Amino acid sequence: MSDMQSITLARRPSGAPVPQDFALTTGPIPQPSQGEIVVEVSHLSLDPYMRGRMDDVKSYAPSVNLGETMTGQGVGRVIASNAAGFEVGDLATGMTGWASHAALKATEARKLDTNLKPSLALGVLGMPGFTAWTGLRKYCRPQAGETLVIAAATGPVGAMVGQLAKAAGLRTIAIAGGAEKCAIAKEQFGFDEALDHRAYEDAGALRNALADVAPDGVDIYWENVAGKVLEAVMPLMNVGGRIPVCGMISWYGGAEESQDRLPSMWRSILVKRLHVSGLIIFDHWDDYPAFLAEVAPKVLSGEIKYLEDVAQGLAAAPEAFISMLKGGNTGKQIVAL
Amino acid sequence: MSDMQSITLARRPSGAPVPQDFALTTGPIPQPSQGEIVVEVSHLSLDPYMRGRMDDVKSYAPSVNLGETMTGQGVGRVIASNAAGFEVGDLATGMTGWASHAALKATEARKLDTNLKPSLALGVLGMPGFTAWTGLRKYCRPQAGETLVIAAATGPVGAMVGQLAKAAGLRTIAIAGGAEKCAIAKEQFGFDEALDHRAYEDAGALRNALADVAPDGVDIYWENVAGKVLEAVMPLMNVGGRIPVCGMISWYGGAEESQDRLPSMWRSILVKRLHVSGLIIFDHWDDYPAFLAEVAPKVLSGEIKYLEDVAQGLAAAPEAFISMLKGGNTGKQIVAL
Repeated sequence: MSDMQSITLARRPSGAPVPQDFALTTGPIPQPSQGEIVVEVSHLSLDPYMRGRMDDVKSYAPSVNLGETMTGQGVGRVIASNAAGFEVGDLATGMTGWASHAALKATEARKLDTNLKPSLALGVLGMPGFTAWTGLRKYCRPQAGETLVIAAATGPVGAMVGQLAKAAGLRTIAIAGGAEKCAIAKEQFGFDEALDHRAYEDAGALRNALADVAPDGVDIYWENVAGKVLEAVMPLMNVGGRIPVCGMISWYGGAEESQDRLPSMWRSILVKRLHVSGLIIFDHWDDYPAFLAEVAPKVLSGEIKYLEDVAQGLAAAPEAFISMLKGGNTGKQIVAL
Repeated sequence: MSDMQSITLARRPSGAPVPQDFALTTGPIPQPSQGEIVVEVSHLSLDPYMRGRMDDVKSYAPSVNLGETMTGQGVGRVIASNAAGFEVGDLATGMTGWASHAALKATEARKLDTNLKPSLALGVLGMPGFTAWTGLRKYCRPQAGETLVIAAATGPVGAMVGQLAKAAGLRTIAIAGGAEKCAIAKEQFGFDEALDHRAYEDAGALRNALADVAPDGVDIYWENVAGKVLEAVMPLMNVGGRIPVCGMISWYGGAEESQDRLPSMWRSILVKRLHVSGLIIFDHWDDYPAFLAEVAPKVLSGEIKYLEDVAQGLAAAPEAFISMLKGGNTGKQIVAL
């Protein structure tokens, strides 16, 4: 067996990350301490939240230190177990980091159903899918006939939000980057409308296009991108609208705007009686079994569709991550090791 | 009987209103049409929301047109009735506008209990008190031991929020303008702490002072002022904190800031999983009888205290309003006619 490979944080990015912010390092494969298992990672998840971990600022989870392995979820086979409940050969998932192998506390790992494709635990049946399901239930109060807008609509959160909302009888409007993603949003994920944000030079132009396809206004805006899309949608919100704030990918590298947009945003919240709620999925893991019980059969039956973008090899992870932050992926970004 | 006097909107203000934006006009006292009553106004309410009505922008309620009587709630005796359920001599309240007399649809007027001082229907038992009670119940989920911060703390919303929160076992922190108001906040309304925002030159200095008196962070920030106070409080919010957005008086005349504060605000909402809800009391009038049944006895018994600032005469209304927007009042601003 070869050494363990890891991608570590070599430098804190200024704005958008670049390849030099990461380093590929090697070391010995760990041994499991008491209560631990060692997993050989087959698939690694890349998610926008990881950009936040690269900064040295207080957030809901600690930053990655310089020289440390990038944080992240992986799946793989157990190759050594020093914990009850796990045997060599089991399929497991946990916070492996961007690495070929990881020692995990058994209490922080989860055994996977081998009837399901391993990578599903990272996307449609993992954190992104669960985030979509949770946010809709807890913070959106979706009603049949209402209109929902979501950007990054072919990504794993967007695709699930769109499909669940459509099934609940909502009018669903996708915003995505490029004609191809727009076509996928409508054809694969059943969005009623899809707008290519790149086709509109500013928030005002995007807003006009949105107003055309949302003639009754917007009841739910799922926030995962912020920036231009947020500015476009906000004036179209209906009274009593709901905005789960799940991410703000367009601002992760910093936002540059000379005008203070806070007063107008605050005024919209007041005047439209909006409900804006921060959503961090880590608060909601108790509901995960209920999610899995409801959604896994629908994924297996094909009722709920998903899309994966797979990069090959751990060394490809930094480029795939950098590209994902720029919208280079179409579906859930996975790295296959 | 003399003519009717009204204060009309002479000019749309640019920033803070000035006396020239208003005009005193006279005309005949109206006669009641079918289903109407005519009220001789004894007390008129001045409220921050009226500043919004002076602008020609879409909001939750229509603007006042140029030359029209300023909108507002009044109380007074019925001097003519053409509607079942009201007799001459009854005490009634409704949207009289800033005027000595008003014809009101009986369906939009409310008869008042003559055991209660008429002006109470404009403050502690009127819209401001009801706003405080509603917002706390519906959007704040107050828990004993939590910390609440509110500015304009001696005003009619602030005083009620503070007293209800204190009774529910919260630690209550007042922000007010000047030492006198701070003393009133603590002595009359039972706030645990009171900070004079004028004593701190910027949001950072105010934040440091707040952090000292809120060592466990802030769970509920009742937003009625925005600006410096909002910036001071936001970084101190605890995870899961709640922010009812009820007003933003410091931005009503426009906000000037070269830096875009929206991204950091949006990030706080995400990272702290805050719940921000717009609150317009007009949505909640169905609950008013329950409010009155609960709170009126406590006001009569002195368990809930209130404070009124009374300007004398309709002609004094513009100056009193202008002063109120600058924090010149201490309690509920009333005009006695």
